Amino acid sequence: MTVRSVRVKAARRLTRRAERMSGGLFLAEGPQAVREALGVEGCVVEVFATEEAGDRHGDLLRSAAAVGVDWHLADEAAVASLADTRSPQGLVAVCHVVDVRLDGLDWSRVALVAVCANVRDPGNAGTVVRCADAAGADAVVLAGNSVDAYNGKAVRASAGSLFHLPVVVEPSVEETLASLKGHGLVVLAADGAGTTSLDDLPAELLCSRTAWLFGNEAWGLPADIAAAADQVVRVPIYGRAESLNLATAAAICLYRSAREQRRRARDEAVTRPEG
Amino acid sequence: MTVRSVRVKAARRLTRRAERMSGGLFLAEGPQAVREALGVEGCVVEVFATEEAGDRHGDLLRSAAAVGVDWHLADEAAVASLADTRSPQGLVAVCHVVDVRLDGLDWSRVALVAVCANVRDPGNAGTVVRCADAAGADAVVLAGNSVDAYNGKAVRASAGSLFHLPVVVEPSVEETLASLKGHGLVVLAADGAGTTSLDDLPAELLCSRTAWLFGNEAWGLPADIAAAADQVVRVPIYGRAESLNLATAAAICLYRSAREQRRRARDEAVTRPEG
Repeated sequence: MTVRSVRVKAARRLTRRAERMSGGLFLAEGPQAVREALGVEGCVVEVFATEEAGDRHGDLLRSAAAVGVDWHLADEAAVASLADTRSPQGLVAVCHVVDVRLDGLDWSRVALVAVCANVRDPGNAGTVVRCADAAGADAVVLAGNSVDAYNGKAVRASAGSLFHLPVVVEPSVEETLASLKGHGLVVLAADGAGTTSLDDLPAELLCSRTAWLFGNEAWGLPADIAAAADQVVRVPIYGRAESLNLATAAAICLYRSAREQRRRARDEAVTRPEG
Repeated sequence: MTVRSVRVKAARRLTRRAERMSGGLFLAEGPQAVREALGVEGCVVEVFATEEAGDRHGDLLRSAAAVGVDWHLADEAAVASLADTRSPQGLVAVCHVVDVRLDGLDWSRVALVAVCANVRDPGNAGTVVRCADAAGADAVVLAGNSVDAYNGKAVRASAGSLFHLPVVVEPSVEETLASLKGHGLVVLAADGAGTTSLDDLPAELLCSRTAWLFGNEAWGLPADIAAAADQVVRVPIYGRAESLNLATAAAICLYRSAREQRRRARDEAVTRPEG
């Protein structure tokens, strides 16, 4: 028995941003994303799967059943029509959007944030979410005119990380920066034209609670936004490349902060033992 | 006057790997790649450009003329048929392949190398070339069954870096590693399953002349190849992400080595002043 086409048709509408916005729903494709989505309470509405995918991912089928999520058998063409890849893996979940508001973050625990300001490429945005998750960041903000976090390519590039850490969608970059600073974070803007090299930032600064700000892949950070940052930092180019791409620069910056923050925490644990 | 279609047709054959291999030629599209290619003596055979692109990039037209490279006016459809992007920028150069042999490297100057072992995705391979260039690496080796360095997507992802540092194409990963070790480099394999965290590598080791080895994006490094490395190193995952993608992991590893090597060189310059 395959799912009635009316249900697939309704889900297919979610490939369009306007429909995602109005319904508060989006599509997550592939076993990794579906697994992570099922790990978020109340997130998954229903799953469409080919028979083959159901056989291959019995664990997901059981997870879905355990939390009362409908599992619809669909043919390959139907599942493919919901997916954004050339080779979908026979599995797509309809999910409730997961983004939170800036003022909904538990600020006492926020030490590292990645902010995308007007990042337009969904692959870049998703990869930044993935890197931020890997680096143990506490939130990602898609600010300004950034790409929709729920775009199929962005969801796929996040490799499940969209479901791991708080993602904030905030139309105003200015308000984002004001809020981050208001909560005591240092704002470091990453820009190839930055006056300070990442290598020259004092460890003291890198250990601070930090928000890294990344600009548009083509035109970088507008002057007024860069000016609102505490420092504009460039990843040093040791060779002849003109620049790094956004996601690799973000990975280097986020990891650098994460490592220094952890080193500091370790040092403090050693020098100030409890009791 | 637009270029005769027979010439465009001949160039178009270079979109196929077999034709590139047999002719020793490839296509580089867009102003950045064409500019960098023109900077390599004897590399560019001819340039196809729309009238608009010629107007916009008069500097390139003059550079080509200065070194006797033919500049063919072609219509937009003709140039687009040579390009790999949806929105080509009206400019494609036919170039001689630029790869060198391992034994052609100036080993006395080689301190940092990136090795891709069976990396299949052209975007990843090109991004590793770009990151290696940015990190000041002395060579990139595309080893084993890695994607063709001259694939249009790989060339584009390298953002001109293909023309900046020596790129080696070596069918045998084993021979690559043997050669690197024979020339005194430490081989560090990057693998999510690595026993040692990048954070725990002693600075002493990171300062060594180093080859970083990166495996296939899906199945990583085969056991026999990992076993041939001096250490198998994982980029630490501080958060909940399962892994990093290949290019971001490569950027973090290469930059870490580059930074430590530079720090060491600076320290030595301070402690052992000349004279």
